[in-house]
Amino acid sequence: MYIQQLIDKLGQDHVSQEEHELFRHSRDESPHDSVLPDVVCFPTCREDVEAVLEIARINNVPITPFGIGTGLEGAAIPVKKGISLNFAKMNRILDFSPEDMTVTVQPGITRVELNEYLKEYGLFFPIDPALDASIGGMIATNASGTTGVRYGAMKEQILDLEVVLADGTVMHTGTKAKKSSSGYLVTNLFVGSEGTLGIFTEVTLKLYGLPECTVMARCTFNSIESCAKAAQNILLKGVSILRMEFIDKESMIVINRENGYDFPEEHSLFLEFAGAERTVHQEVDIVHSLLQDLGCNHWEVSSNPVEMQEIWRARKELSFSFLQEEGIDEVGADVCVPVSRLPELLTYARQLINETGLKGGVWGHIGDGNFHTLVLFHPTIEGQRELAESTNEALAKRAIAVGGTCTGEHGVGIGKRKYQQLEHGQAYDMMKKLKQLFDPQGILNPGKIF
Amino acid sequence: MYIQQLIDKLGQDHVSQEEHELFRHSRDESPHDSVLPDVVCFPTCREDVEAVLEIARINNVPITPFGIGTGLEGAAIPVKKGISLNFAKMNRILDFSPEDMTVTVQPGITRVELNEYLKEYGLFFPIDPALDASIGGMIATNASGTTGVRYGAMKEQILDLEVVLADGTVMHTGTKAKKSSSGYLVTNLFVGSEGTLGIFTEVTLKLYGLPECTVMARCTFNSIESCAKAAQNILLKGVSILRMEFIDKESMIVINRENGYDFPEEHSLFLEFAGAERTVHQEVDIVHSLLQDLGCNHWEVSSNPVEMQEIWRARKELSFSFLQEEGIDEVGADVCVPVSRLPELLTYARQLINETGLKGGVWGHIGDGNFHTLVLFHPTIEGQRELAESTNEALAKRAIAVGGTCTGEHGVGIGKRKYQQLEHGQAYDMMKKLKQLFDPQGILNPGKIF
Ligand SMILES: Cc1cc2nc3c(=O)[nH]c(=O)nc-3n(C[C@H](O)[C@H](O)[C@H](O)COP(=O)(O)OP(=O)(O)OC[C@H]3O[C@@H](n4cnc5c(N)ncnc54)[C@H](O)[C@@H]3O)c2cc1C
Ligand SMILES: Cc1cc2nc3c(=O)[nH]c(=O)nc-3n(C[C@H](O)[C@H](O)[C@H](O)COP(=O)(O)OP(=O)(O)OC[C@H]3O[C@@H](n4cnc5c(N)ncnc54)[C@H](O)[C@@H]3O)c2cc1C
Repeated sequence: MYIQQLIDKLGQDHVSQEEHELFRHSRDESPHDSVLPDVVCFPTCREDVEAVLEIARINNVPITPFGIGTGLEGAAIPVKKGISLNFAKMNRILDFSPEDMTVTVQPGITRVELNEYLKEYGLFFPIDPALDASIGGMIATNASGTTGVRYGAMKEQILDLEVVLADGTVMHTGTKAKKSSSGYLVTNLFVGSEGTLGIFTEVTLKLYGLPECTVMARCTFNSIESCAKAAQNILLKGVSILRMEFIDKESMIVINRENGYDFPEEHSLFLEFAGAERTVHQEVDIVHSLLQDLGCNHWEVSSNPVEMQEIWRARKELSFSFLQEEGIDEVGADVCVPVSRLPELLTYARQLINETGLKGGVWGHIGDGNFHTLVLFHPTIEGQRELAESTNEALAKRAIAVGGTCTGEHGVGIGKRKYQQLEHGQAYDMMKKLKQLFDPQGILNPGKIF
Repeated sequence: MYIQQLIDKLGQDHVSQEEHELFRHSRDESPHDSVLPDVVCFPTCREDVEAVLEIARINNVPITPFGIGTGLEGAAIPVKKGISLNFAKMNRILDFSPEDMTVTVQPGITRVELNEYLKEYGLFFPIDPALDASIGGMIATNASGTTGVRYGAMKEQILDLEVVLADGTVMHTGTKAKKSSSGYLVTNLFVGSEGTLGIFTEVTLKLYGLPECTVMARCTFNSIESCAKAAQNILLKGVSILRMEFIDKESMIVINRENGYDFPEEHSLFLEFAGAERTVHQEVDIVHSLLQDLGCNHWEVSSNPVEMQEIWRARKELSFSFLQEEGIDEVGADVCVPVSRLPELLTYARQLINETGLKGGVWGHIGDGNFHTLVLFHPTIEGQRELAESTNEALAKRAIAVGGTCTGEHGVGIGKRKYQQLEHGQAYDMMKKLKQLFDPQGILNPGKIF
């Protein structure tokens, strides 16, 4: 019945029950079990979203927003079925102010589309989760990625968010001014909320000037600890580095094998510097001499765009490189800890993987204290999945124990729910009350976070 | 009766009903009417705060936290009387991790005390509201000030906040990791909440490296518009300036007169550059040639610490300079707008003051789009207070109309309540619901924000 109401409101073209659409909206890039929604809607404007929400409310049907489905924790999987709300048709730029270095967009635009548009104005939106993603999905997971060490996460980029609440209220969380001490600062309550508190229909983002000059450097170290110490020392030096990625030896071997590279097969740091020409070269020098003192090997610098792209491509395809073997599956962690605890945690992660006897890698945004593991398993071999998952569990718990978090950037979704109580303690109950306040019926992406 | 309970719990030394204490806690630096609390408590630890809150809850008595009373909107005035909770005795450093560039402190420590401690480690906490203030008060008002253009506001500096809620729950809003996508991101719900949602008992702050080199520059322009345009152009250039302050001609005249300076009596920009030696000098050059193209006059550079301090002292004492005349009083605005609207708004502000025939000044943190006005009036001359206040009202409304906010950094307190509905629209009702959820009895700083 409600599906007919959706069709009446949005038009046949914007409502689909075709099998391939249901399938596409049943999963994301995570290993979590897929669940088909009953119907997929494609709103084109805020009013469409309001209409869908009203129908859902009246008929008590769950709604799960969908960006482009690259999430790694199943946040976009409609575990209670109902409506999947796809934002692909809400991808317009609504207002662009180069003088203010801000842009107002609909949430369905992807970061690559946005940067394509901004390029000719010498501006860019910096958050880079290594692959393309919708701005709405990035807000809903508080994404960050390779540039987090300089620009922070999504939560640092938002001036104003238009949100439709479960009760139909349409509200703005901020203004277009750079700062404010007015009312409660509610923007970040929605950032990282995975569509469970409200649905975003518009956002005003901060932009930054495209750097004049970009230089990459890479080097290796004999131990994981030395890599972590190197990262820590670069940060203490105050160099405003753009990217600082760690990849462990085992992963470097896989990258070389699957992509035909011949990088040194050692624990590696990949660095990127960006800014004014003179400043950048100075910073490269500072970091080089620092890392030499710490015993780095194979220092290589490149400012050749083709070469740089190639290297970052290798980094980006890292997790796919692992998954080449037919029928293999993987589980991955996403812990974030105080940078001073990195040597200990990275070493612990490698040790955990080794103990399982399974193949896997460790890498991450080491400047943020945020790293990932990936452990491969054969779904058909009994006990392997559990073994692989046990490394995640041990790592998440250790991260929380040292004052860190079970998820630095991928979000809670389905997989990290079990650590929420442990990590947040008393705050967890308060979060539940917030969910209850905003969505008493429980129709907004049920089954996530809690 | 409840006062005896407070004494029994905290001890006689930590509870005061002495007249001078009641008076000291009846006001802040704002022109709002003072109200005496019934009693002042001086907790020394979180357990004390919990005990006071429990007594307040049982006896239904309002609690108003008090930092050091420098607020400009009456946020610390106990308008419904009851308990004033002074944090002066909760000013310890609990945990300091130079490797992580973080520090955990009690909220009563002041920013000057904190920086005094950090100095020898080459680190500092950057937020600078032009005078000393408690970290708790700065969080509760989302303070920013002269360094906001580089570091943002308090809300950008907090990794974790320990909060005691009205119902006695003690919770942590974050972790010690640099970033997280776990649970709801609730930290900023408390930042800027002026003690109305919970009481802070501990906070983990980000720190930064002390710059190697600092250089000041100042210059003047013939018009307010040119100053605003200059600021906008510096930002677009991507120069990571540390301070960028505007002071209008009328204020410069007062600064010279009251402090015996002889600055050029023109619309002025005061700039500060900070960073690595070579970078800083390069940035000064870039900005100088940019401002020359825009027609600046009286360009002066200084890296002499004594001279620099003198100039910033003049800036800091600006508002006091205006208040030299016996019996004079003042009202001030604190609007923040998109930087592109600054030329229009600054000009409008000056025009509003001129129309009243009263004396006043316009200045502010121009790089953030945040500026202040100060209009002097004689409380004894009928109609003058209203006339002075009418400028604030017109300016706040215009700021909101162009997509800005009625308060960029001072907070809502008492004076900006009347603009909350206009500025936040539907979000205002949601904020009220949040207040209701966190403080159903209404004992936490009642009469503020709403
Ligand atoms: C190989 C690989 C590498 C990755 N690397 C990184 C990385 O480095 N850093 C990082 O942060 N992430 C990384 N990710 C994860 C992923 O890219 C992010 O989680 C991304 O933010 C998801 O965006 P999406 O558009 O695909 O959202 P989806 O996966 O479609 O949805 C994510 C969440 O957003 C919600 N949502 C979407 N639109 C809205 C809306 N309009 N209103 C409310 N809620 C909405 C959904 O309901 C869901 O809860 C990686 C993923 C892969 C596959
Ligand atoms: C001349 C002058 C210039 C100024 N310039 C600036 C400026 O440039 N930028 C700027 O941002 N501000 C500025 N201010 C305003 C002022 O310095 C800030 O508002 C400051 O943050 C207040 O700190 P405080 O310790 O004095 O707090 P108080 O005024 O004592 O209290 C402020 C609020 O904090 C709450 N509070 C205090 N401690 C706690 C706690 N532990 N838990 C919960 N709530 C608490 C109080 O209840 C109150 O609501 C200026 C003030 C003056 C007088």
